[in-house]
Amino acid sequence: MTPTNPAFAEEIKRSFAQQAVMSLIGAALTRVEAGLVEITLPFRSDLTQQHGFLHAGIVTTIVDSACGYAAYTLMPAASEVLSVEFKMNMLRPARGLKFVARAQVIKSGKTLTVARGDVFGVNESEEQELVATMLATMICLVR
Amino acid sequence: MTPTNPAFAEEIKRSFAQQAVMSLIGAALTRVEAGLVEITLPFRSDLTQQHGFLHAGIVTTIVDSACGYAAYTLMPAASEVLSVEFKMNMLRPARGLKFVARAQVIKSGKTLTVARGDVFGVNESEEQELVATMLATMICLVR
Amino acid sequence: MTPTNPAFAEEIKRSFAQQAVMSLIGAALTRVEAGLVEITLPFRSDLTQQHGFLHAGIVTTIVDSACGYAAYTLMPAASEVLSVEFKMNMLRPARGLKFVARAQVIKSGKTLTVARGDVFGVNESEEQELVATMLATMICLVR
Amino acid sequence: MTPTNPAFAEEIKRSFAQQAVMSLIGAALTRVEAGLVEITLPFRSDLTQQHGFLHAGIVTTIVDSACGYAAYTLMPAASEVLSVEFKMNMLRPARGLKFVARAQVIKSGKTLTVARGDVFGVNESEEQELVATMLATMICLVR
Repeated sequence: MTPTNPAFAEEIKRSFAQQAVMSLIGAALTRVEAGLVEITLPFRSDLTQQHGFLHAGIVTTIVDSACGYAAYTLMPAASEVLSVEFKMNMLRPARGLKFVARAQVIKSGKTLTVARGDVFGVNESEEQELVATMLATMICLVR
Repeated sequence: MTPTNPAFAEEIKRSFAQQAVMSLIGAALTRVEAGLVEITLPFRSDLTQQHGFLHAGIVTTIVDSACGYAAYTLMPAASEVLSVEFKMNMLRPARGLKFVARAQVIKSGKTLTVARGDVFGVNESEEQELVATMLATMICLVR
Repeated sequence: MTPTNPAFAEEIKRSFAQQAVMSLIGAALTRVEAGLVEITLPFRSDLTQQHGFLHAGIVTTIVDSACGYAAYTLMPAASEVLSVEFKMNMLRPARGLKFVARAQVIKSGKTLTVARGDVFGVNESEEQELVATMLATMICLVR
Repeated sequence: MTPTNPAFAEEIKRSFAQQAVMSLIGAALTRVEAGLVEITLPFRSDLTQQHGFLHAGIVTTIVDSACGYAAYTLMPAASEVLSVEFKMNMLRPARGLKFVARAQVIKSGKTLTVARGDVFGVNESEEQELVATMLATMICLVR
């Protein structure tokens, strides 16, 4: 898993800044390495479902972007990444002071990349609990 | 697929009103029938990813809730519904003036219910284009 | 959904005959149309899991091939189809005298095609019961 | 992940012996521990698809059983396990002298258990290559 685009980190930061939904929900890009990306989201009560937990769709929003950018770290320059599909398992109620979506590439290919993303709820004591896991397929489009 | 909870429609409206994320993104509950629920979301530029299309996570947010409530229409009174897992296929760029997530129950069981959800982008001429499809498993919890 | 390869039906028959596992389990190709393929499998007790129902992996075997060939009907000549990924929901115990896997293309693209496949158990009275549903992504490789 | 059924290993061996499809394809149960199960399948040309690789449905057959039994190791005595759903990503052509499906529990619950299963192709030099990965949901039924 060796990156071929030396500018991947700057390009991901720029792209993330253009994902308007990330500022709406208050998410931040907190780690970008070859094959690995993390996005962090502080809890906010306006992001919840009917029981007061983070809505599964918002959990999906951060981990889908994390998987896409993890895939992008290994794509060539002048390419774009799009989500083909993903599956999410909601493992526990999504509670915490903040949430960390950590995505890693499992298999990087010329056209398709498969990534896994775990979302952890983090409490006051900085303990992490796995609340959801994603298995995603991303496609590389050459601009 | 006969509902056993005569109050399902009112309960879903009440629950939807408690999903704070729905007011954040501007989504509305537009159809509730036995085994079928629709949620409508007008396009807003603060809900987008880096190419200006609706973010896949926001597409997921509305169709996950639609699948959950479709399942709920067939659950007994005094129950709660939670998403176990779902898979999404993003079929086309999520563009449109508004988006309609239409979910239908495929198989309703005592504990688990399986639903399918389609998300359509709607243009100025009210033409619908399928942009994503979800296959979801929901669980019934007795309060 | 207009096929561009006029020989798709013959090519699928030839390819199916080369899937050695299909003769091992006794499956037959029973319908091939543009965007739609059916594979039929008579029940056999050597295909079962511990409760005597058809094993989920055998259910998957026939519906994965049906989805792949349904996708292939819309691919250009001199191409090959491979399964990228699929999700299966097992809806009921897989019982029946025979099983019919019916796959249909939802979205056909140049590189990727998404198909849905339903598997029905058929009893003595020719009644069909939906036992499983698949949502699959297929890729077109040009030879 | 502490097992509560002290007889889990014997029960899994007995159950595996009753999965008739496992003897048809030649699969063996090669590892059973709390939360972890492996099934091994030697390559056979009558298990292949049209390109001579192991059919994705056969890959699924061994990893679905491995995930189910991994879940079962943590279930109480007098229970049964059934596959609710699973997603498979086919990462590389399934080639090898034999295949090892290794499943591990991610989250064990009273009703539902989520497991991950990886399938490796093993060559003459005993090198393992990841050919597929599964994310599965299993349900516990009390007899």
